[in-house]
Amino acid sequence: MLKGIAASAGIAVAKAYKLETPKVVIEKKSANADEEIKKFEDALAKTTKDIEGVKERASKRLAEEELAVFDAHLMMANDPELAGQIKTMIQNDSVNAEYATDQVATQMVQMFESMDNDYFRERAADVKDVTFRLKCNLLGLEIPDLTSISEDSIIVAHDLTPSDTAQLNEYVKGFATEIGGKTSHSAIMANSLEIPAVVGCPGLLDAIKTGDTIALDALDGVVEVNPDDATVAKYEEKAKAYLKEKEELKVLVNQETITPDGHKVDVAGNIGGFKDVEGVLKNGGEGVGLFRTEFLYMDSDHFPTEDEQFEAYKQVLGGMNGKRVVVRTLDIGGDKKLSYYEFPQEMNPFLGYRAIRLCLKEQDVFRTQLRALCRASVYGKLAIMFPMIATVKEFREAKSIYEEVKADLIKEGVQVADDIEVGMMVEIPAAAVLADQFAKYADFFSIGTNDLIQYSMAADRMSEYVSYLYQPMNPSILRLVANTIKGAHKHGRWVGMCGAMAGDPVSAPILLGLGLDEFSMSATQILKARKIINSTSFEKAQKLAAECLEKDTMDEVEATVKSYLG
Amino acid sequence: MLKGIAASAGIAVAKAYKLETPKVVIEKKSANADEEIKKFEDALAKTTKDIEGVKERASKRLAEEELAVFDAHLMMANDPELAGQIKTMIQNDSVNAEYATDQVATQMVQMFESMDNDYFRERAADVKDVTFRLKCNLLGLEIPDLTSISEDSIIVAHDLTPSDTAQLNEYVKGFATEIGGKTSHSAIMANSLEIPAVVGCPGLLDAIKTGDTIALDALDGVVEVNPDDATVAKYEEKAKAYLKEKEELKVLVNQETITPDGHKVDVAGNIGGFKDVEGVLKNGGEGVGLFRTEFLYMDSDHFPTEDEQFEAYKQVLGGMNGKRVVVRTLDIGGDKKLSYYEFPQEMNPFLGYRAIRLCLKEQDVFRTQLRALCRASVYGKLAIMFPMIATVKEFREAKSIYEEVKADLIKEGVQVADDIEVGMMVEIPAAAVLADQFAKYADFFSIGTNDLIQYSMAADRMSEYVSYLYQPMNPSILRLVANTIKGAHKHGRWVGMCGAMAGDPVSAPILLGLGLDEFSMSATQILKARKIINSTSFEKAQKLAAECLEKDTMDEVEATVKSYLG
Repeated sequence: MLKGIAASAGIAVAKAYKLETPKVVIEKKSANADEEIKKFEDALAKTTKDIEGVKERASKRLAEEELAVFDAHLMMANDPELAGQIKTMIQNDSVNAEYATDQVATQMVQMFESMDNDYFRERAADVKDVTFRLKCNLLGLEIPDLTSISEDSIIVAHDLTPSDTAQLNEYVKGFATEIGGKTSHSAIMANSLEIPAVVGCPGLLDAIKTGDTIALDALDGVVEVNPDDATVAKYEEKAKAYLKEKEELKVLVNQETITPDGHKVDVAGNIGGFKDVEGVLKNGGEGVGLFRTEFLYMDSDHFPTEDEQFEAYKQVLGGMNGKRVVVRTLDIGGDKKLSYYEFPQEMNPFLGYRAIRLCLKEQDVFRTQLRALCRASVYGKLAIMFPMIATVKEFREAKSIYEEVKADLIKEGVQVADDIEVGMMVEIPAAAVLADQFAKYADFFSIGTNDLIQYSMAADRMSEYVSYLYQPMNPSILRLVANTIKGAHKHGRWVGMCGAMAGDPVSAPILLGLGLDEFSMSATQILKARKIINSTSFEKAQKLAAECLEKDTMDEVEATVKSYLG
Repeated sequence: MLKGIAASAGIAVAKAYKLETPKVVIEKKSANADEEIKKFEDALAKTTKDIEGVKERASKRLAEEELAVFDAHLMMANDPELAGQIKTMIQNDSVNAEYATDQVATQMVQMFESMDNDYFRERAADVKDVTFRLKCNLLGLEIPDLTSISEDSIIVAHDLTPSDTAQLNEYVKGFATEIGGKTSHSAIMANSLEIPAVVGCPGLLDAIKTGDTIALDALDGVVEVNPDDATVAKYEEKAKAYLKEKEELKVLVNQETITPDGHKVDVAGNIGGFKDVEGVLKNGGEGVGLFRTEFLYMDSDHFPTEDEQFEAYKQVLGGMNGKRVVVRTLDIGGDKKLSYYEFPQEMNPFLGYRAIRLCLKEQDVFRTQLRALCRASVYGKLAIMFPMIATVKEFREAKSIYEEVKADLIKEGVQVADDIEVGMMVEIPAAAVLADQFAKYADFFSIGTNDLIQYSMAADRMSEYVSYLYQPMNPSILRLVANTIKGAHKHGRWVGMCGAMAGDPVSAPILLGLGLDEFSMSATQILKARKIINSTSFEKAQKLAAECLEKDTMDEVEATVKSYLG
């Protein structure tokens, strides 16, 4: 029995399929530079094609948000810096292409890893994934084709790369890996695919061989090898109970979200594109609380044209059958870049030139998006929201540009819906503090907790040194949420929340009690949230919330919620 | 008549002294590497000695805070990376030392300048200053000795480096430069030296030659060349009026800070070390509201020992004659580094591992400082404050370490004052929001507006792209200040402010009205602040403040203050 981290809930019993990746052995050889450069260019072209193929296959099962990683890989494969360094080394040192590739890759990985922060560690993983492919292609090594699995299996591996998980087919009942955590790519993918996964489970490869029977308990993070019949029976029972609960949740798909004492709220889904719409509807989402339009831009090699955007928005609005879709305008910058736009180098990009700050300067980009949105508005129920608003002046300015665009379109004879709501993200402390004044101008708010917490605590949650300060349940954060809701309701506006906190079962009673009107989250979390709300007394939640606002620390808030739930 | 930016108030009429720096012409020559390396090392040693000499001379007229720039220069001169690159180039290319120095310097400057942000631009200026000295020493060129000026003069230059301003003697009545802004080094130095300066004044060098008579009006940012007698008389009159006002302020040195309707507050000074104590006392400061202890650490090549720190704190506490000294514990990290401590690489250092976050992990460093402070406490009136507190838990933890240290000392038989106040900076939005809870544990607050604004607006004020969001008078910031004061007063605690806002004449009436108890600022701003407060009705200020809290934008707040002042 091996212990690991339950990263994607579920239970499976099946044969092990041990993923053995090719062993890449690199020798340094003297070689003809021109020939090696030609060899390298061919391998690079094949690598690009391979990644495109993987992305293509993956797009059948994965949502837009998870596909973004392949764009990062493609960008890296096409990065003139990477190819340039390798070719320079081949040229200068007259060495073989695989040796040069390996040297340059090792250097880049070391550089990124030495930076000792999650963001750069991800970049290091990207370099490894892409250059591993490149080296295999140079050496003529076959990367195992997971799509060939044709009987029920549980994959056992040291780690699964995004390319690996993207190739999993319906015979794969789950996977277990030696490394990784709850937020690693493989974990996110498993959740998206709705298959059980245990990660961070050391000793796996030594203990298991292909063909062993595996019981994978991804509720408690346990992997059992060749369990006896009684054990198998036990897991089958546990799996049944789990599936039963899932079934019970399914009953809620077509129900309202309403407390026993009659307080009605909405539970909505976050999406990255049209591909995610089905998941929201299947899980009974009452709308889309956040449509992250940045994927439209990041998946493109140019600023998407008005028509390209119009088609994308029309599809989503139409797909949601008249349910409200809250579209966030371009939220780029910080750690999200575009290959075709040069961002200034800043010392603290999270406190820098991004989102609405960029859109108010690059008005052509902004106007194009607003035109496309206005044109699409007649195909559904559109709400537009601006990200990273810090001052009333910025909101007024953004809204007046929207009004100009709308007036221009009407003048041109284009139909525009007359019930478009125009609101804003509340993710900057100044906006939460001044919510009552913003509410005079904004039709609604959506609280972005990830950034709000980060700025309120002055702590980058990507830095492991200060990640302990990422405290959604700190009373200071709850007060900012409370003040935002109070300010909005004073002017008859509604408030949603689209950060990670909205989907957290422990926060739900407090947020309900604070008067939050809309909870927006990943599609797979919707039904669980509805179940909690539908069994929580609004009156009791209000008392709980009021009590939590007067606590000193996060620990005290959590203890209060626990005693209330118990 | 030339127009520029008034960077340090005052008026002077005197002969021009045109600062002509040596023209450095670099030729590339083949040379014996070993000889050139020897030459380079000698020049580098002389450069270090020169900078030390400049720092030594400067320390007679400048305050600790302004001397820090020379430590940056010394650190750069002793940076093995810089010297190593130059020596490698001499070795590999067999070129002359001045050519290699010039090449490496140009590359480094370009790198820093390409980063397009104020912090790196300052680093570029440092590289230029140090390598200019180095090249002059290599070429045997004399850098003009400003200390030789022996008749009343106004210096006219393209720009003044920190090394230049540090050498100004009592005959220098002011200066004018072609480039620079209100926050450039030369402007800060002029303020510290209390001499008039006009900066950012293009065309200066073409219009003026040494010996011309210059009227320098650094109240309105004007430079007149060879003015006629009537004009000179006009400026003399203006200078008289200005000096009269300064004299009137001097009358306030020994007076209380109290409104006409009897509301008493304190106006205190910010200091970087003992050298600044005299300025605070001379300007009638009622205490020290902020002693930035990081200079003790930045001016050292090791963590200062307990005894070294004890001596420094004892000097300051004793020097202030029983007036309160608020000592901020080590506030390092972000953009402030130490040569002898390795900080982690972080993507957003302002949201990272710094100040109290570091002290709670590096407890030996923290305990050493607290021991030194406790030991020094018997020599004056000590208040200790912790920087960058985000949660109540952090404050409690820091305070309990202080209590342990104090108990240990008492057990060792060491005398410790029993009236030490222990408080915190309020510079993180979460702390301002939760002030009432923090006030249960902290004896006082000091609001650090620079960081508070930066985090509340999610905007790095060092990034020119978002510096428009640095809005002290935004109603959201005023509300956070108001909430901090209200929370403190609820528990009978006092609140100070030590950010730039505290010394701003326009904010003063609002801060007074919000109930701020202590205003701490640069020594030279103290009397002006006292004059404003002593002529402002507290009742009227309270009404003004209440009105401003309900505004939408900074512009509206400023208009409200203006109509109140008018």
